[in-house]
Amino acid sequence: MDINSLFLGAKSENDEIFSKELVKLFYDHAQWRKNFHPEDPDIISKSELSSNEYIKTTNKMETVLNELSSKLRAKMMPWHSPRYIGHMNSETLMPATLGYFAGMLYNGNNIAYEGAPATTVLEVEVGQDLCKLMGYEPEIGWGHLTPDGSTANYEAVWYMRNIKSIPLAIKEVVPELVKEKTQWELLNMSVDEIMDLLDKVPDKLDDIKKYSSRNDNTKVTMLGKLIVPETKHYSWLKAADILGIGLDNLITIEIDDKFRMNIDKLKEVIDNLVDKKIPILGVVSVVGTTEEGAVDYVDKVINLKDEYSQNGINFYYHIDAAYGGYGRAIFLDEDYKFIPYENLHDVYNKYNVFKNKDIDWPSKEVYNAYESMSKADSITVDPHKMGYIPYKAGGIVIKDKRMKNTISYFANYAFQKDTKIPDLLGAFILEGSKAGAAAAAVWTAHRIMDLNVSGYGQLIGASVEGAYNLYNKLQNRKEYIVNESIVEVHPLCKPDFNMVDYVFNIKGNTDLVKMNKLNFDFYKKSSYFTTSYINDLIVSHTEFDYSDYKDSPLEIIRRIGISKDQWDNVHKLVLIRSCTVTPYLNDPEVFKYYSEEFDKAIVSKFSEILKEN
Amino acid sequence: MDINSLFLGAKSENDEIFSKELVKLFYDHAQWRKNFHPEDPDIISKSELSSNEYIKTTNKMETVLNELSSKLRAKMMPWHSPRYIGHMNSETLMPATLGYFAGMLYNGNNIAYEGAPATTVLEVEVGQDLCKLMGYEPEIGWGHLTPDGSTANYEAVWYMRNIKSIPLAIKEVVPELVKEKTQWELLNMSVDEIMDLLDKVPDKLDDIKKYSSRNDNTKVTMLGKLIVPETKHYSWLKAADILGIGLDNLITIEIDDKFRMNIDKLKEVIDNLVDKKIPILGVVSVVGTTEEGAVDYVDKVINLKDEYSQNGINFYYHIDAAYGGYGRAIFLDEDYKFIPYENLHDVYNKYNVFKNKDIDWPSKEVYNAYESMSKADSITVDPHKMGYIPYKAGGIVIKDKRMKNTISYFANYAFQKDTKIPDLLGAFILEGSKAGAAAAAVWTAHRIMDLNVSGYGQLIGASVEGAYNLYNKLQNRKEYIVNESIVEVHPLCKPDFNMVDYVFNIKGNTDLVKMNKLNFDFYKKSSYFTTSYINDLIVSHTEFDYSDYKDSPLEIIRRIGISKDQWDNVHKLVLIRSCTVTPYLNDPEVFKYYSEEFDKAIVSKFSEILKEN
Repeated sequence: MDINSLFLGAKSENDEIFSKELVKLFYDHAQWRKNFHPEDPDIISKSELSSNEYIKTTNKMETVLNELSSKLRAKMMPWHSPRYIGHMNSETLMPATLGYFAGMLYNGNNIAYEGAPATTVLEVEVGQDLCKLMGYEPEIGWGHLTPDGSTANYEAVWYMRNIKSIPLAIKEVVPELVKEKTQWELLNMSVDEIMDLLDKVPDKLDDIKKYSSRNDNTKVTMLGKLIVPETKHYSWLKAADILGIGLDNLITIEIDDKFRMNIDKLKEVIDNLVDKKIPILGVVSVVGTTEEGAVDYVDKVINLKDEYSQNGINFYYHIDAAYGGYGRAIFLDEDYKFIPYENLHDVYNKYNVFKNKDIDWPSKEVYNAYESMSKADSITVDPHKMGYIPYKAGGIVIKDKRMKNTISYFANYAFQKDTKIPDLLGAFILEGSKAGAAAAAVWTAHRIMDLNVSGYGQLIGASVEGAYNLYNKLQNRKEYIVNESIVEVHPLCKPDFNMVDYVFNIKGNTDLVKMNKLNFDFYKKSSYFTTSYINDLIVSHTEFDYSDYKDSPLEIIRRIGISKDQWDNVHKLVLIRSCTVTPYLNDPEVFKYYSEEFDKAIVSKFSEILKEN
Repeated sequence: MDINSLFLGAKSENDEIFSKELVKLFYDHAQWRKNFHPEDPDIISKSELSSNEYIKTTNKMETVLNELSSKLRAKMMPWHSPRYIGHMNSETLMPATLGYFAGMLYNGNNIAYEGAPATTVLEVEVGQDLCKLMGYEPEIGWGHLTPDGSTANYEAVWYMRNIKSIPLAIKEVVPELVKEKTQWELLNMSVDEIMDLLDKVPDKLDDIKKYSSRNDNTKVTMLGKLIVPETKHYSWLKAADILGIGLDNLITIEIDDKFRMNIDKLKEVIDNLVDKKIPILGVVSVVGTTEEGAVDYVDKVINLKDEYSQNGINFYYHIDAAYGGYGRAIFLDEDYKFIPYENLHDVYNKYNVFKNKDIDWPSKEVYNAYESMSKADSITVDPHKMGYIPYKAGGIVIKDKRMKNTISYFANYAFQKDTKIPDLLGAFILEGSKAGAAAAAVWTAHRIMDLNVSGYGQLIGASVEGAYNLYNKLQNRKEYIVNESIVEVHPLCKPDFNMVDYVFNIKGNTDLVKMNKLNFDFYKKSSYFTTSYINDLIVSHTEFDYSDYKDSPLEIIRRIGISKDQWDNVHKLVLIRSCTVTPYLNDPEVFKYYSEEFDKAIVSKFSEILKEN
């Protein structure tokens, strides 16, 4: 497997093969059109093709397409270049882009088999792939593509909300099934128990749903609290709002100095809620936080979940691995077994996952977290992030496909409930119409690269190694001489995944406001504020605000030499944020070249900034 | 304008120009990559490009792409052919497909300007286009693309739910603003009044939102009922569920014999609710019902809304024009003014909108409905339906952009709240990451064809005329002789838009179950149940079920000669459903050819069906 052959390339090195495949896929389609009832005559005649009106319209089309191309080239971000180390973007997989294009020509709508007999099957296969990736049994679990990670998270809340209300509904419809249970016990049943109960009364399912929170909004107000870490993506706020949980019922848990949800604090919050007899609707962990790339202690939450379960307290557990989900491929052998920790580096050597055989990754914490993901009730995982698929292709997997029945709907025109059809997506998902092309893109990538160490693991390895190259460089570099000043650089912490956050400061400066401005100025020089196409280095930035982060930034604040007083007054820290999704910065030679370019760019940008201030 | 030049063509007549533009857009991009820092060396070396591993991986890629292409050709629906008259699908606009492809190469994420500086601007322009299409002031209204019509509908419910709860929140946060108002009055304020109130206390906005249904889920339970017609898309059920309104608070209104919401019944329901002091959260009309293409009496709802408003009763009014929305283009002159009814046919003659100058469309009812759309609070309109754009591109427009603030969120990494950035989408939408490519596709189409009679109107006209050709044909044809039997055909009703529903029956049969089976058998012979690629005629079907339609199907049931008793026993009617999105069936010669082919196919299919039974 040579992953470089799967990208167009930072310098379009693979333009010939891309172009060849592109044209082939197009003519496959064009000839397919012609050969559908070859006896049907042309509709657009040769004389029409040469008419004035035709030529005028065609010219207009060409003019607008040229204008579009020009606008794109003038302003879009150069994801393809290793000079772009900002958001979780890089160039995407060539076969995925080509697969999307091919799918788009046929323009299937995966909402129903009828609208896309080929691509709905591909989406079902992709769902099974993602189950395998997460350690779910593909025959028991289920998954599908979503528009994006946010809507996948909404769907997760939809699941937990409707499922957790089912016992209350059963109490009303089939009371004998739960007769000995108190309200508190009903609100504390596990997903497994609830699914098993429903299995006992298949004929009552529709009636029971009518008394669940699907129909009865007062039930929503009884379900208790949704618990997320401080580092949650902002879509969790939207999820609580949109699904009618309400932000007042969202509890955020403090993080530790590695930006992972603090398990002691989580336990404290749960204990406190249990004491007050307030139910816990669900707990969310993040695998790959958006701002830091941190990986939450999934294994510890699973342990806690099991402990509480012993005492009759059960909550729904969802993992938001929109960003980090594909990272699990690097821990799976070719049989999709989780590789023992002690064998990891032998396996990595065998498969040439890392160029640097001594790479200090993964930590045992990160390994344990990934291992335990298979025990969550559902997981968000976005192919359009670390799956290197073009937008938009989010995804969600659920551990037990019986859960689907708690959110299902049927439309007469789209689904034939009483007829056996091969695959049916629309009845069990949040979104409506969906591009079959997205499924074609993901399927193509998955068929070329298995979702384990032999395939995607290589890509994840390249990206993580790029982050470690950058982190080690900044760690060792420590400072830049800029005119008469010294600009220090402070990495935030060792990456759990492929993101490096760091802070610049003028040596000796102890003023937090000044430091924040320095970093924001650097960001402005390294982003869309300055024309991107001629920029030497493009990054993103983030801000740790007290309202979200409480005192978690204090560790780095102190390390930089800024006082707690300053923090208490300002309560905001601006950081530079570099996600090394690019698959090229693992190569020592390539990294060396770009590293020197980065240094030059940093000195040059600060030289301007210092002059301007 | 020659609309035929904008499609690849049913027989790929335009393959040369498609291929030329495709390759040009690709090389524009490939060269852009190379010319971003031309001094940066190639990363993939020539020797790597000829290595064994590289060739092996490339071969695998080619094999999988061939497999994909083969699967697509074997099973996908031939939307491109006029033989496909089923769902609301046909081939899409060539420039839109090319625009999507170009956009995908740059793979921007329109969630934030930073991720897509070119394509977010295009999406904002598209939003303004859609405002103009709906008669909203582009400077006052606002719009954006959504994944699909369903999520646009969810967003509409999100708006109405959060906005209608704002007065309750104001009562708690700034009571002096609403001090004289009762709870009933607070729950009956209009969107305009609420926005004006918020304008008075801009500094309190965030506080007020904290007491709205965004934070407080008990407020959701106070908002009353959401009213939809029986013909609503099933996403309205999902919307009520997902947004925490609950299906128990969804009221469906009966329809009349034209499958439009019955205004008297609506009034009755509202009066009844008002009597009981139950608030009305919102009312939804459909412009282009999914099963019948019916256009609800928007103008009459607007009149009703104004009347009730006089009496202090205000509800949010949303129009689900996911399907019919682009139809409004045919009523707008080049200055985007709504064309007077008496001038319509002169204008249509001037612009050659219809081949048949005597076409009996639009009815005054349909005209009035489209005219009044500009008075709704928000409208769902999907470019990927009658905009002829590939999936996925839904859309929503709101009349007053101040509404955005009631649903807004900000993410530190994605948005800079305190910095002026040109355009910002992610903070004000339901979805998360979104493909810039979709905006590029829609923008390209809109720039080539204005959203009025000179552009898209022509396309809508071709499609509507195709439907009238089909409707008139079935109406006049009346029956088919199949072996010894006579198969009658009964169109449901004159199309409001471009969809024709019809029912087949064996002459003399008065058994509804038998008739339903006959139609379903026909559908099975004309859909994915039979291999699509060699099928002579492909349609879709629908079912009118008593639970959704009450006794509305009685009119056609009786017309066919089936008794009310039969209906009362069976309570289900199976219909064949043909949406003539194809832009070719307006041409008399083309229609004549395919009409004869349809007749042959109908006779041949029924001949098989009758033998099998």
